[in-house]
Amino acid sequence: MNFQEYSDQFLPLIELTLRQAVFDRLNEPRYHELRSMMAYHLGWEGESSGPRAQGKRIRPQLLLLCSAAAGGNWRDGLPASAAVELIHNFSLIHDDIEDRSELRHGRTTVWAKWGEAQAVNTGDAMFTLAFQTLTKLSATLPAERVLAALQLLQEVCFQLTQGQFLDISYESSRSIPLADYWAMVGGKTAALLAGCAQIGGLIGGAEPVRQQAFHRFGYALGLAFQAQDDALGIWGDAALIGKSTESDLLSGKKTLPVVFALERGGDFANRWLEGPVRQDEIVHLAEQLRREGAEEYTLAEAERLTRAALDALDEAVVNLEAGAALQELAQRLLRRAY
Amino acid sequence: MNFQEYSDQFLPLIELTLRQAVFDRLNEPRYHELRSMMAYHLGWEGESSGPRAQGKRIRPQLLLLCSAAAGGNWRDGLPASAAVELIHNFSLIHDDIEDRSELRHGRTTVWAKWGEAQAVNTGDAMFTLAFQTLTKLSATLPAERVLAALQLLQEVCFQLTQGQFLDISYESSRSIPLADYWAMVGGKTAALLAGCAQIGGLIGGAEPVRQQAFHRFGYALGLAFQAQDDALGIWGDAALIGKSTESDLLSGKKTLPVVFALERGGDFANRWLEGPVRQDEIVHLAEQLRREGAEEYTLAEAERLTRAALDALDEAVVNLEAGAALQELAQRLLRRAY
Repeated sequence: MNFQEYSDQFLPLIELTLRQAVFDRLNEPRYHELRSMMAYHLGWEGESSGPRAQGKRIRPQLLLLCSAAAGGNWRDGLPASAAVELIHNFSLIHDDIEDRSELRHGRTTVWAKWGEAQAVNTGDAMFTLAFQTLTKLSATLPAERVLAALQLLQEVCFQLTQGQFLDISYESSRSIPLADYWAMVGGKTAALLAGCAQIGGLIGGAEPVRQQAFHRFGYALGLAFQAQDDALGIWGDAALIGKSTESDLLSGKKTLPVVFALERGGDFANRWLEGPVRQDEIVHLAEQLRREGAEEYTLAEAERLTRAALDALDEAVVNLEAGAALQELAQRLLRRAY
Repeated sequence: MNFQEYSDQFLPLIELTLRQAVFDRLNEPRYHELRSMMAYHLGWEGESSGPRAQGKRIRPQLLLLCSAAAGGNWRDGLPASAAVELIHNFSLIHDDIEDRSELRHGRTTVWAKWGEAQAVNTGDAMFTLAFQTLTKLSATLPAERVLAALQLLQEVCFQLTQGQFLDISYESSRSIPLADYWAMVGGKTAALLAGCAQIGGLIGGAEPVRQQAFHRFGYALGLAFQAQDDALGIWGDAALIGKSTESDLLSGKKTLPVVFALERGGDFANRWLEGPVRQDEIVHLAEQLRREGAEEYTLAEAERLTRAALDALDEAVVNLEAGAALQELAQRLLRRAY
């Protein structure tokens, strides 16, 4: 099976497991609105609900594929796949509050719709539900392995809060040291992908050394994705041409090219540190950044990390068919309009 | 040993275990402020830190005593005792955001000091840390029992969010149905005490039937405490005489006596539903509530629940010395200025 064929099998079951996790609880009418807030955020209810609002469910698919690639039966991983998607979404609900984002996938965010108090609490409920769902692995796996999976997900969550802490801390600053950039992206993006890959490997029966390889695969994939995404946010078509309102230079986001140029301390850095960038400067500043080597550096990093991810994957995989599908998933994540 | 003697042994070790949980992580300088926010909230750092800011650590002590009462070595329960205190404090950090409370134990709350974004995230970090700390039980207990303890704490957390959901939902309302009052108090107060008692029993080696008795003990204790506390908030000395600003009638809190009177629909209910109570009405309205039978009902409920708690305790206990200390703890919680 190629990635698409795996995906066609995975997606309905991921959605079913997620729905069971949410709808098996909170059946009493007095809690229906709590359930509705979760169902709305997960894209099942409310305005503009449907596949687009649900997102691509990348993390659960990554977990199931790693489980198959480790030589296991991917169906064993379904509770874990729902758990990582719930963790991802809990963190989005809280991030939206922390960033004051009123829109996600073009829809009003939970806090903007129900108020901050309910949104903080709904995130907490989803967080708990994620761990409860992961614990359902006990139905098919021995307690030691379930406990190991719980520990991995706990560690992921802790790293998510570390990354988010750095992000909030640097919010009012125009710059961030390169080392803190990597730590932030590691916590916010790479830790969960690494956790998905390793938990998948663990459930699929990988021994510790191969579990570590799965972890390295997911972690490097997450960093590579972010580096690539950062480049796209400055030199991608949407950023430069069509809708320059989408340029990360305009929003002041501390992306890898910017952080690189700030460490170099050239003309771009001088302009950046003066204050917010205007829309009419974007094309010029993107070019300036390129001249200072930021694009080359960022793409080289993305390339290096992608290679590291694929090397780790080679070490991890036992089932070559699922391994090939994982390569495809990685390429889909990384290959974009760039 | 009586309760005080147990307590003198427990408290330094609870504090040490809590400190290890927080300070063994986040050693890198870039995360020191995240650690500081936790240390501040737990009463170890910052202005007015010290024993008063730390609170009484009731929940960890309850857990350790139940562990001893079940016939176990209470030291085995230390990681769990730190975990329940971290859960309690995570929920306080988020509750303060949700309620917009700027003071706790006379100190500025985390959100009021560091902003909402950091406070939401610090609560999430402490939530995760609680589960990581509980998982350290693996050092002395078999995986099955650690997993069972994790499941109990997960269920507690889910019920906390259910109780909090009801509380927020009814915030803008002057009344709450009696059934929802009990569900709210069950989630916000009783669930965690029940979880402490049951997890203690589980760690101490109680079989399932006695674990359930520990759970009933903690749950009834929590409800009895809340009923008593609700009565104190209206007819206690501080509420009626000294500082009537402390009366729950003034803050509009939906306490058991008020909810009872609202169901009855008498003169008190008519006045209450008209809008906020003025300070000069408090003594009169407290008397009116009493005439309508609200005090008698509330104290009878507290009494009934206390008896239920002590009956359940009798069923649960194996070690009679620790059992007697638990009775003392229960009486201390319930015996107040009333």
